[in-house]
Order: sequence, then structure tokens, then C-alpha cells
Amino acid sequence: MSKTVDQSKLMEKIVSLAKRRGFVYQSSEIYGGLNGCWDYGPLGVEMLNNLKLQWWRNMTYRENVEGIDASILMHPKVWEASGHVENFTDPMIDCRQCKMRYRLDVLFEELSVKKKKEVLRELEPQRFAGQQKDEVIIAEFEKTTASDGTVSKILTSVSCPNCGNKGTFTDARKFNLMFKTFVGPVEDASAAVFLRPETAQGIFVNFLNVQSASRQKLPFGIAQIGKAFRNEINTKNFLFRTREFEQMEMQFFVKPGSDDRWFGFWRAERMKWFEDLGLKKEKLRWNQHPPSKLAHYAKDAYDIEYEFPFGWGEIEGVHNRTDYDLSRHEQFSGKSLKYFDEESKEKFTPFVIETSAGASRSFMAFLVDAYHEEQAPTAEGTLEERTVLKLHQKLAPNKVAIFPLVNRDGMPELAKKIEADLRSHMRVFYDDSGAVGRRYRRQDEIGTPYCVTVDSQSLQDQTVTVRDRDSMEQERISMAHLREYFAAKLI
Amino acid sequence: MSKTVDQSKLMEKIVSLAKRRGFVYQSSEIYGGLNGCWDYGPLGVEMLNNLKLQWWRNMTYRENVEGIDASILMHPKVWEASGHVENFTDPMIDCRQCKMRYRLDVLFEELSVKKKKEVLRELEPQRFAGQQKDEVIIAEFEKTTASDGTVSKILTSVSCPNCGNKGTFTDARKFNLMFKTFVGPVEDASAAVFLRPETAQGIFVNFLNVQSASRQKLPFGIAQIGKAFRNEINTKNFLFRTREFEQMEMQFFVKPGSDDRWFGFWRAERMKWFEDLGLKKEKLRWNQHPPSKLAHYAKDAYDIEYEFPFGWGEIEGVHNRTDYDLSRHEQFSGKSLKYFDEESKEKFTPFVIETSAGASRSFMAFLVDAYHEEQAPTAEGTLEERTVLKLHQKLAPNKVAIFPLVNRDGMPELAKKIEADLRSHMRVFYDDSGAVGRRYRRQDEIGTPYCVTVDSQSLQDQTVTVRDRDSMEQERISMAHLREYFAAKLI
Repeated sequence: MSKTVDQSKLMEKIVSLAKRRGFVYQSSEIYGGLNGCWDYGPLGVEMLNNLKLQWWRNMTYRENVEGIDASILMHPKVWEASGHVENFTDPMIDCRQCKMRYRLDVLFEELSVKKKKEVLRELEPQRFAGQQKDEVIIAEFEKTTASDGTVSKILTSVSCPNCGNKGTFTDARKFNLMFKTFVGPVEDASAAVFLRPETAQGIFVNFLNVQSASRQKLPFGIAQIGKAFRNEINTKNFLFRTREFEQMEMQFFVKPGSDDRWFGFWRAERMKWFEDLGLKKEKLRWNQHPPSKLAHYAKDAYDIEYEFPFGWGEIEGVHNRTDYDLSRHEQFSGKSLKYFDEESKEKFTPFVIETSAGASRSFMAFLVDAYHEEQAPTAEGTLEERTVLKLHQKLAPNKVAIFPLVNRDGMPELAKKIEADLRSHMRVFYDDSGAVGRRYRRQDEIGTPYCVTVDSQSLQDQTVTVRDRDSMEQERISMAHLREYFAAKLI
Repeated sequence: MSKTVDQSKLMEKIVSLAKRRGFVYQSSEIYGGLNGCWDYGPLGVEMLNNLKLQWWRNMTYRENVEGIDASILMHPKVWEASGHVENFTDPMIDCRQCKMRYRLDVLFEELSVKKKKEVLRELEPQRFAGQQKDEVIIAEFEKTTASDGTVSKILTSVSCPNCGNKGTFTDARKFNLMFKTFVGPVEDASAAVFLRPETAQGIFVNFLNVQSASRQKLPFGIAQIGKAFRNEINTKNFLFRTREFEQMEMQFFVKPGSDDRWFGFWRAERMKWFEDLGLKKEKLRWNQHPPSKLAHYAKDAYDIEYEFPFGWGEIEGVHNRTDYDLSRHEQFSGKSLKYFDEESKEKFTPFVIETSAGASRSFMAFLVDAYHEEQAPTAEGTLEERTVLKLHQKLAPNKVAIFPLVNRDGMPELAKKIEADLRSHMRVFYDDSGAVGRRYRRQDEIGTPYCVTVDSQSLQDQTVTVRDRDSMEQERISMAHLREYFAAKLI
């Protein structure tokens, strides 16, 4: 019997489980941690690798998609061409009095509705004299933050949350979210490079290299998994908004005019991927970007959102990036990135449909989605609480746990033999300590799909019990068939 | 018949093949490249992933090794504790006249033996008056560069290779090889962090986290694959000395006193790994670090070296790092990193045996080792040259190529059916263009272990020919058994 877990406590429980059982640790924890960076522990790295492998197979074991692995450091011109140097910024302000620094939109967001109304009334006394609804005020506020003139006016009527002074804010300045470093021994502008803020550009600059080596014809895609970095001012929500994270991106190059059809195709494919790996359908939705919020390169954009305990959040974006990126790289590099279509004898710049999934965010979605607390029957017939990660078998970090039931002659040897036979093929865990009920609970909590128990009958007839994590039902299987039995289900 | 490839041309040929067929490209090539950074193309990323997967399975599918994946950005104190802030430096000098900057050891290395002798004679006229052997002079020079007093004396007698002036060099300064960046909006010392120059420290700081989550007892290891960055002044030799690279490291924690035994164990394990994956034994050797060249943390250290066309180079280090790292992190973090041994009821700091392989360097070693040029018989009975990558089947990027022999009714359909059946299980390549001999050559050049040819007999009896890359022998196999046939050999 599944029970509903209190949403406000859910994230806390998952973060705590993640640390205790070795899924995710704070980076550099013994030094107080490094904000926005996380380490994957023994179970976390297995689950993350499984997730990435599923994506890689699903995306690149197709005849029309190739993989690459581009470097994190790239030529700085790449980011001028992509628009990141100019546009990948957050507006920041300082309090002249106390020197505190704020991200403008966050400061605005955190004002109370009452305060927002007060500010708007000061700016436009006639328009905001009445009893406007909260939504109207919030919407108006969101709109105004975009226009710089209004922003400075608002700032003069807001007090600094830290020192309480009014009128002490500087004008908003653009703060670039790319991490900058220097290549070579001289730290000057000519040596500055950036840690890539997205993996996509590594694909665009290699478009013709890949096309000519693979002899692909349009339409075809290039896929990549890799780390990206963003110097977020406000990190939050565990693995959701971090400074270092991993992406799984694919850029699909198509003939202009066929882009809408392929956009539809990839939207369907990507949603199906999450569903096939077990995310609950009711926790998934599409969010189309309204025209006013489309990125400068996009013709159309949909996000796949997952309902986390802290609300809906993007786990993947599917975007029609048009010919923006290839055209810009052509312009900035002076190298033609046009495609020659042998059939029509035309040369043109392909359109790009992008599928951009967060590996780290997806990891968190699968973890949250799998988390269940249940009342489960014990061997004695009573009920006891169990925490169980109902992870898809292909994502589960450990595949099989092996328990010798008692420490009797021959039993550990038999169990060890099973372990040895399975270990080189899949991640297995051997546990001979404590009551078997407790051993089951420990495996349930980390999502191990099967537990194999070696009991006294095993010594007589060479069979073992295999217990299913979700149904908790047991089946007797001949030891000789175990590996086959699991290989078919798990790998 | 294998022929010996001219060593001086070999690297050039391999770099060219790597680019043309999609193994490795220069990073940001359309912008003129970014020195010391490389991108893996469609075949390269498959081969690299295969290599990493082999390592991961070999190292972590053991009962006493756990995996992790730590972040690239870490708390800056980590690098104070590890000694990198202080010691991970190259000595640099500038010419005051022309402003050129040199790495001191490289400048010294590049002096001719004659010039070296001249310099030494100027410094110690009596000692270097005679006809010393070249080796003595070189050895003396290597020794003196270590001692700062002598260095400045030498510098006054060397001319700047760029402008030719003498006595214009600054004193040598330490140049740290870590890439520095800033977290958060303020670029000051308190916000400085480094891109990790090695993955090992991510393992040390997580030692107790992993131990408690995994319930491992000593001896046990923690393994990790990940990117590391070094701001090398002089990059060289393709993937050998780069600024961005990937490591495959394992730190094995043992009770002090048992470290020598485990050091021997892991040396044997690691050499066996390279040999099992097919590197030629005569191209592999051990290089023990002499006591004078041991790193500050090491008790003993051996490198596995491979003989590249440009000479012997390290592809893996096996080091006894003692309790240096854990002790230093304990000291700098103020957190105990001692292990409590339940059997002996003692608390102590474990010793560490490290196995540190370069994924990028190993990749290059496997690529170089696999490269062969041969005279091969054609269908017409004549001989023709073929280039073949004799990669281990588990490392080969594409596993099977499928060729319909002629474009006759039913043949492409049959070939497409085989492709569809295999594609979701392994990387396959479908090729229906050109003479079959040419198609074989194209696959040989990228190391595809098997080519399946669908011919007119296939239409009658549902068999195909399977051609082996190395022996070039063909076998007729029933289509129904193909998947099994390959799965057993390739995955």
C-alpha cells in the first residue's frame, strides 16, 4: 500500500537518502562544500551512467544520428558567435551603502505583493490607484523588469533588504554567467577562454567535420553528453540549479521547410523516452515558450517539465533553432558551413532542431519519481514501513543482491559462487549480515530490482529464491538459469 | 603481410586518418583551433567510451572497489592541502627586452650541448676545462636547473632565442599550472577556484562518505573517470600533452604495512589490463621513478610507458602515495579522516596505492598500436595495400558493417533487415555504395571487426558471408544466428 509523502518534507528526505546511501554528496564537503557543485557517490555514479547509456543508445544507435565528445574549453570566438558573450547575462545591482550584490530579477521577485503595488503606485499613481488583483500586479512587475528605464525608477523606491537604506542601488549592470579562465601564462584579454555554458556549440562548429567523415546526408543529427558550467548567482533545489552540470544534447540538421515536421517528431521521441524509463505521466507536461519569451535564436520552443516537490521544472528543451547558429559561425569564422544537397544541387544552411536534456536534472527527476514509502507485510504477518526506490531496472545502480540465509556449512560458498558468476556481468551486492528482512529493506531503499536468497533447500536442489522489489513476490529459480534470467531483464 | 611503417611519418598518418574518418578533430577548428584541446568525432567517441567502459567494469565490478564521479570545480582549500597551490608549478622567465616568455626547463633543454658546456665553463672554469662527455654536461645541467642560485647565474650567460640579447632575462618565477576561475559575481581572491588538475583529490575528500555509505572495510578502493585540466605552456604530440584530458584513476586504501604487497598487486593488474586489450608487449615497459625524482607524496612510483612513434611516454602511473593526502586533508579541513578498524580496534590513517591512467593517452596508444599497413590479396588475385586498425573487438567503434552485394530485388531489403535486427544492440554501419573491395577497405581503416555481405545465395538459403577484419577470411553463417554470433564476440 503506497502512501502519499508530504511534499514539503520529500526533498529533504531524498537529499538525506542520497547522502546516506551514496547517491549524491555535496562537493568538497569536508571543507564546508562548494556551492552549486555535487559529487555522485558509488550508487549515484552507476545510476547516472545507466541513464546516460540509455540516452546514448536511444539517440545514437540510429542510422541518422552520430555522436561526438567536444572539449569543454573552446575558442573564445565561439561564444561571440553564439551570442553568449553579449546575451548570456543576468542584471546585477549593488547597494552603494552596504556593498551587497543582488540579481535584479531575484530582488524584484522577492518583494511582497504589497510592496510591488506600492512601487507601481509611486511610478504610475493613476493606473494603480484601485484594487488590482495580485496577478495583475505581478504580471506588470515582470514586464517592467525587462525595460531598463523603468528599472531604475523602481530601484529608487525599493529599500536594500540588507541595510534597509533606500535609493542606494547602483544602476543594473550585465553580469555574464560564463566562467572565464586564461590559457597560457599571461592573464590578459587575448588569453581569456570560457568553460562552455552548453554543449551545443561543440556540435555546431563540428557540423561539416562530422558530416564529411560519416558521409551522412540531411536530415541527420549529432549527439553529445558532457559537462557544462554556469556561474549562477543563486543556486537552488539540490541538483536543479547548479554551477556544474551535465547535458545530453542532440542537434538535428534538416532542410529548411521540413523543420516543423522534425520538430514534431523529436518532441514525441523525447517525451516517450522519459515515459519508457518509467517517469509517471501525470508528473510530466509540455510548456511552450510564449513568443515574448523565445530565445533570440528560436522559432519555436517547448520544454518538458517534471513536477518536482518544489514545483514544475524544465528537464529538457526541444527547440527549433533555425539556421541561427550555423549562420553566425559562418559569419564569425569566415568558413562556409553550408550543406550541398546532391539531389537538388542546392547549397543552403540547414535548420536545426535541438533536443537538450539535463542529465543531472533528469537524474533528480528519476530519483524523486522512484521514491515511495509503503506499508509492507513482514514475515511475521504484521505491517512495517518500507522506503523503496521503484527505479526502472535499467537505471537501478545495483542489479542483484545475494543473501546467504544463515551461516551454515556450504551456504556462504554457494552464495559466493552465485556472486562470482554474476559480478563480471552486472553490479551485484553481497550481504550476509543481519536479519533477512532488514537486508531486503536496505536493498529496497536503493532500488535493487532483485534479491537472491540462498537457503537450506538450495543446498539440496540447487535452486534459490528470487524476490521482486516492487511486488515483493518470490520465485524459486534453478541456479543454473540465474544469469540468463537476469541478463534478459536487466542489461 | 604486414610492413613496417616509417616511424617519422606514422604520427602524421594517424592524425590525418583520425581527422578524415572522424576519430579526433582539433577543438574549434573553424576558428583556427584551441591549442591543447581536442574533440572526439563519431568513431572517436565510441572508441573512447568503449575504452572507459572496459576500465570501469574491470576496476569497479569488484567487491572491493566503489566508483564515484566528483565535480571538476572543488573548494580551493583542496588544492592547498594537496600541495598543488605551492608545488604544481613550472618555472617561467621573461626576456626584459622583447617580452617573450619561456618555460625555464624547456629553454635549458633546447640549448645545444656546445652551448651548455660554454655556460658551465663560464660558471665553473676549472671543473669544465677538459673534454667532458655530453652525458656529463647534460646531467650537470639538469641538476643545476633545480637550484635557484645557479639558475640566475646561468641565465646571465644565455641569449634570448627570440631577440638575441644577453642578460635580459628576469629571475625565474613559479607559474602555477592550474586553471583559475571565479565563482559568483565578484572576481577577487576569496572567490577564486581551480579546474581540477587531477581527479584523485575528489576521491580523497570523499573517502569517509564512500566508506560509510558502502560499508566497505579496508582494504578497498574508490575509482573515478573524469576530465582534468592543466595549463601547459608547451602542448605537444597530439593527445599526449594537452590542456584538457581525461583520467581513469583508482585510489586503493590499505592498512599501513600492507602497502608494498598491494602496490605489487595493482602493478600487475594494470599492466595485464593493457595487454589483455591487445597492446603489443614489446611496446610496453615499466619505468620506476628514481628516489631523486619521486613526488613529494610518494614512497614508490612506477609508470607504465608505451613506445609511441615520438618515443616512450607514460600512459599510467602506479604510485604508493602513503598517508600523505588523507593526513593533509585532515590537517587542512580539521575533520578526522581516520579509519576505525573493527578487528584490531585501532584508528589509523590508511595508506593509498594509486593507479592513474590517462584515458586520452591510452586512447592514443591503442590507436597507434592498432595501425597497420599491409599488402592484401584482392578478389582478382593481385596484391593491394590496405590500412587496417587491428583494434581489440571490444574497443572497435563500429562492430559490424553490412553490405548488400548488388542492388537486386530483395537484396537491400534483406540487408536492411539484418541492420535493423543488430542496430539496437551494437553500432553497425550500412554501406551499399561502390565495389565491395572498396567497402572492405573503408571498414578495415576504422577497425570494424566484421563485414556481413548479402549476396544472391542469401536470397535462396538465408545465409550471409561474415568476413573477419584481421584474417580476411570469410565464413557463411545462417542469418538466424547472426545476432548471437556477434553478441558473444563483441559486446
